[in-house]
Amino acid sequence: GIAAAEVAVTGYAEIGIIRSEAGFAGSTNAQFHQDVEVTFTMSGETDGGLSFGAAIDLDETNVAAGDDSGTTVFVSGAFGKLTMGDTDGALDWAVADAGALTSMGDDHTTHLFYFAGNGLDGSHDNQVVRYEYSFGDFGVALSYEQAGNNATGTLADDNVAIGATYSMDMGGTALKFGLGYQAGSDAPTAAAVYTNGDAIGASVSAELAGGFAVSLGYIKYDFDATNVAGGAATMADFAHTGLGVTYTTGALSLHANVGHFNPDVGASDSTYGLAVNYDLGGGAVVMAGYGSDVGAAAGDQSQYSIGLGLSF
Amino acid sequence: GIAAAEVAVTGYAEIGIIRSEAGFAGSTNAQFHQDVEVTFTMSGETDGGLSFGAAIDLDETNVAAGDDSGTTVFVSGAFGKLTMGDTDGALDWAVADAGALTSMGDDHTTHLFYFAGNGLDGSHDNQVVRYEYSFGDFGVALSYEQAGNNATGTLADDNVAIGATYSMDMGGTALKFGLGYQAGSDAPTAAAVYTNGDAIGASVSAELAGGFAVSLGYIKYDFDATNVAGGAATMADFAHTGLGVTYTTGALSLHANVGHFNPDVGASDSTYGLAVNYDLGGGAVVMAGYGSDVGAAAGDQSQYSIGLGLSF
Amino acid sequence: GIAAAEVAVTGYAEIGIIRSEAGFAGSTNAQFHQDVEVTFTMSGETDGGLSFGAAIDLDETNVAAGDDSGTTVFVSGAFGKLTMGDTDGALDWAVADAGALTSMGDDHTTHLFYFAGNGLDGSHDNQVVRYEYSFGDFGVALSYEQAGNNATGTLADDNVAIGATYSMDMGGTALKFGLGYQAGSDAPTAAAVYTNGDAIGASVSAELAGGFAVSLGYIKYDFDATNVAGGAATMADFAHTGLGVTYTTGALSLHANVGHFNPDVGASDSTYGLAVNYDLGGGAVVMAGYGSDVGAAAGDQSQYSIGLGLSF
Repeated sequence: GIAAAEVAVTGYAEIGIIRSEAGFAGSTNAQFHQDVEVTFTMSGETDGGLSFGAAIDLDETNVAAGDDSGTTVFVSGAFGKLTMGDTDGALDWAVADAGALTSMGDDHTTHLFYFAGNGLDGSHDNQVVRYEYSFGDFGVALSYEQAGNNATGTLADDNVAIGATYSMDMGGTALKFGLGYQAGSDAPTAAAVYTNGDAIGASVSAELAGGFAVSLGYIKYDFDATNVAGGAATMADFAHTGLGVTYTTGALSLHANVGHFNPDVGASDSTYGLAVNYDLGGGAVVMAGYGSDVGAAAGDQSQYSIGLGLSF
Repeated sequence: GIAAAEVAVTGYAEIGIIRSEAGFAGSTNAQFHQDVEVTFTMSGETDGGLSFGAAIDLDETNVAAGDDSGTTVFVSGAFGKLTMGDTDGALDWAVADAGALTSMGDDHTTHLFYFAGNGLDGSHDNQVVRYEYSFGDFGVALSYEQAGNNATGTLADDNVAIGATYSMDMGGTALKFGLGYQAGSDAPTAAAVYTNGDAIGASVSAELAGGFAVSLGYIKYDFDATNVAGGAATMADFAHTGLGVTYTTGALSLHANVGHFNPDVGASDSTYGLAVNYDLGGGAVVMAGYGSDVGAAAGDQSQYSIGLGLSF
Repeated sequence: GIAAAEVAVTGYAEIGIIRSEAGFAGSTNAQFHQDVEVTFTMSGETDGGLSFGAAIDLDETNVAAGDDSGTTVFVSGAFGKLTMGDTDGALDWAVADAGALTSMGDDHTTHLFYFAGNGLDGSHDNQVVRYEYSFGDFGVALSYEQAGNNATGTLADDNVAIGATYSMDMGGTALKFGLGYQAGSDAPTAAAVYTNGDAIGASVSAELAGGFAVSLGYIKYDFDATNVAGGAATMADFAHTGLGVTYTTGALSLHANVGHFNPDVGASDSTYGLAVNYDLGGGAVVMAGYGSDVGAAAGDQSQYSIGLGLSF
């Protein structure tokens, strides 16, 4: 039948206690936390069978030209799928994140060296265009993020990436392999001078019998010796490794992940995250999260949260 | 049956003429006014029978950690009900407001000494956690609002409150009594030094036969002689009394309320508000409102509005 | 039956490439563009048969008193229709725009001298109140926009307009005539001194057999020789003419419009816009647009866009 274009309205709310030693005013002690979000998910289909859709949250408005502002728009058909906006580049799309489950403060997925597999994504305005295509157990993707919105005279390279995935079953264990490469540019902060470079990464994730899931990922970042203005590079070379383990039994899920940061010059370091989810049914989940270190200062600045996540 | 989690979308709009002698640019003469609001109300139920929900308006987005931003989230069950966010503290919950009906500019409920029964609520970030429980004709509530989001070294007391209500029928007149106590801290403006203190209040409200409703409330505020920095108190002791009367006949409702401010030192003063509502059915109400004094300057700065309130 | 008050949620998204030589950072080269919007349209009916409604977009929140903020509210019945907010004044309501079709950057309807038939609308806060009434083939409207929100001492005139339309069929060609007059005030920029003046305009639009539609409009603007502060006028007299032609065959629509600016003193100039739409069905339209000059600087600063417009 005809798929009429429509807008689905869904909601999400949190209620609980949160604590972080970094990131916002008064963050050093436990405080109450509630949050409410509304998401509008749009879907439609052309007469010729192309699917299209878009998504925007209640707090994502006034999208500037050449910006993502958290929204996405896609078109898909026999040719594959094209997505624009706040979406993963092809390396991130292929390489699995170390994290799983949810927590109010995203405590377990926002620690310093959490492995999100994101490559150079977002080093510019985070408006990413990604094309993906799948055939059988294989998937491939290409992505593009303009440097400086394609401003004249920019010496910073656009972020261009390619990624591939392969899924297989090995005696009851579902395996997925990911491989990605991205060339582009990055800067330590928004106003700083960019340095061109690239990232290459791979991951393997497995869903084992008995409720276990494991994910292991690695990305190596290499930057030019000089920045785009001809001075010393503003970005340092490093390797990033992430391991995540999740166990689910009935309504209970347990997760741990560790991220390891290993610079070519200087000391390496690791941080880890923990999460526990207990599903009460009907959209309600008891969530606890912990991040071992969330501040760049000496010593560990930890964060945690415990409360309810409510989906409507 | 199963209560599926869902998001209800409702709207409200106003169209008319508004005038205020305080509060916004060009406010000294009558001007046109229209306003449109959308509210998202979420509700769900766990497998175990807990109810949960949340509410957010279209203009309430980007809730900061440790802030209410106008949203609320609740969980309720046999244990009672827990609400967090932009909600009444236990004193305000128990003590009845003097106001009734609606007006475009909230003219009748925003005059200088309007009795909202709010105690110390909102003296910090207005993120209130309230627990309530009812048994038969009795209701009790406890509430908590963190001082300075629980920042280390804050000498300002958290706002802690307890409230109780009792409802009874006396020969066709529905009576409700409210009693509340709150200890905490307040400051004259956001940046000023806090002074610790408390508030104790009571109210009685009655719905009489013949369409009359009456509400009488009283709160006494007492503050320490010194502020939390050791200087002279920044808040003065005072008593606040409010009386409201509402009469409804058919589609027409009339309301008047008066608030009386009586400081321990200095002159007392009163202001009043009036409102008329005429229900056109289908969600449309003709609304007129008046507030006798809305500015702290000498003399009375009044405000009024007349127009339509439209509920969708 | 009873028309229950309700809120309809609809969406719109764009995905494509946009380029403009004016108006936003990095605008000199082609860049990716996606945009997502949600619209809430409210409608209801009183017991007595009055219709009422309102509309607001996701990014239109926190409407200030005496401002339109993009929202509209209306009430209609046997007496006619009253609309308040971001709506056309009576001259604009009567005089047809030169533009048709859609493009991602509104490229074809935002060139320098595009004929939008808007008279003095929006010279103040763009909060317009319009009353309209139709009888047979005739329609009339009155409108009012307060100068400076009716602030005391304002010497700038309120924008007051009257408009009339007449529709007729001439051998299969649907003709519509529009005539409007507006008296009020305008200023070159928001902070500048206002000059009082008026505008008179007329238009004729025709829908011909064979898929052609044509629109021709003209407005003459005249301002006082002195501004409201007694200095030289800040606004110059000019005539504005617009011609639009649209051709539709099957799913394809082509549009061109030209706007001609002819000041009483100085050189006249013209700019034009082009648009092509191809309807894919299901709410998806391929859209291309072009504007010949969008910047006041010497030479032509053009803009264009090409992509998909998706309605949900």
